Amino acid sequence: MSEITENERLSRQLAFSLEIDKEKNILRQTHLSGHGRRENDAEHAWHMAVMSYILREYANEEVDIARVMLMCLIHDIVEIDAGDTYAYDEAGLATQKAREAAAKERIFSLLPEDQKKELTALFDEFEACESVESKFAHSMDNLQPLLLNDSNGGGDWVEHNVTASQIYGRQRKTRMGSESLYGVVDTIIKKNIQLGNIQENRPHPEQ
Amino acid sequence: MSEITENERLSRQLAFSLEIDKEKNILRQTHLSGHGRRENDAEHAWHMAVMSYILREYANEEVDIARVMLMCLIHDIVEIDAGDTYAYDEAGLATQKAREAAAKERIFSLLPEDQKKELTALFDEFEACESVESKFAHSMDNLQPLLLNDSNGGGDWVEHNVTASQIYGRQRKTRMGSESLYGVVDTIIKKNIQLGNIQENRPHPEQ
Repeated sequence: MSEITENERLSRQLAFSLEIDKEKNILRQTHLSGHGRRENDAEHAWHMAVMSYILREYANEEVDIARVMLMCLIHDIVEIDAGDTYAYDEAGLATQKAREAAAKERIFSLLPEDQKKELTALFDEFEACESVESKFAHSMDNLQPLLLNDSNGGGDWVEHNVTASQIYGRQRKTRMGSESLYGVVDTIIKKNIQLGNIQENRPHPEQ
Repeated sequence: MSEITENERLSRQLAFSLEIDKEKNILRQTHLSGHGRRENDAEHAWHMAVMSYILREYANEEVDIARVMLMCLIHDIVEIDAGDTYAYDEAGLATQKAREAAAKERIFSLLPEDQKKELTALFDEFEACESVESKFAHSMDNLQPLLLNDSNGGGDWVEHNVTASQIYGRQRKTRMGSESLYGVVDTIIKKNIQLGNIQENRPHPEQ
């Protein structure tokens, strides 16, 4: 008997609801605007979801915005166990997939089976970055911290000695979701290179 | 000429996107589970939006879940200027409407006119608590902090000497959105009365 009663179903959904509270403790490298403290994953997800709605007209292809918002909201839940991996942390990135796979299994298993499947599929869709919704969600994932960092005089790039080629590498996904918003990103990067907040490419970005 | 060029439109949308970052600095009275720090508005909104999706099957009437999620995400943006008003702060509640009206005008005016209208209408719809979506969003607004507080041994109720009649008064809106989730709420309240975390009614709730 794998069927669960209605009460058990609700209990599981409430257990999951409580568990994800922990996402508010997972800190990112990005700082809040106004040179604030470091941002956490839940705040980042909220910000991305609102931005996706406000900026949806710039998606390269028409998107199901509910799906985009939901993807934004849940894409970092695995970091409750796996932790945040900084976009330019090469060693961390090498083990990220395995850590996140284990986390995905544990955390989504708190839910009833149908919802576990649904959220796992949505998370995998985001990661694959193939659907129009996941591409646009990735645009948000990249644009949101860039806006904050730019508002702080590029402090996070300076702190981590980030190079232009690293940033342009990551922002390729922004372009897959939105050419228009990639234009915004490109302008911000160029400005911050000129200001000395982002290091010139080393090696050359085309290599 | 009230029309704005495409670039100006995008600039406004980005200015709004950056402005709402400030919501992460607005602290609520609720503490994170595990006896953590106080929660902020952005985290609360994120949590409500995810919960609304997971628990949507319990809405009294079928809801447009994208609309519910969006309402959850934006319903506290006005608190950037107006501050958080604790659910049981009578003096604060008396001036809340006026403070929030001014905030709504300033913050949503950062957006292009059409989006200002849309988000203002959505905020007003939430506040009115008449549509099925706004009722269910209110269920989330009430259930989410209750779950956290219950997980912390009712610490927030104890700290503020909250009475059962105050809590039941607020939770009426939960019932408007979901009878099933009101059942959860009722069970949690009764348990916390029994444990002495919530004061017995004074005055009697029926008065």
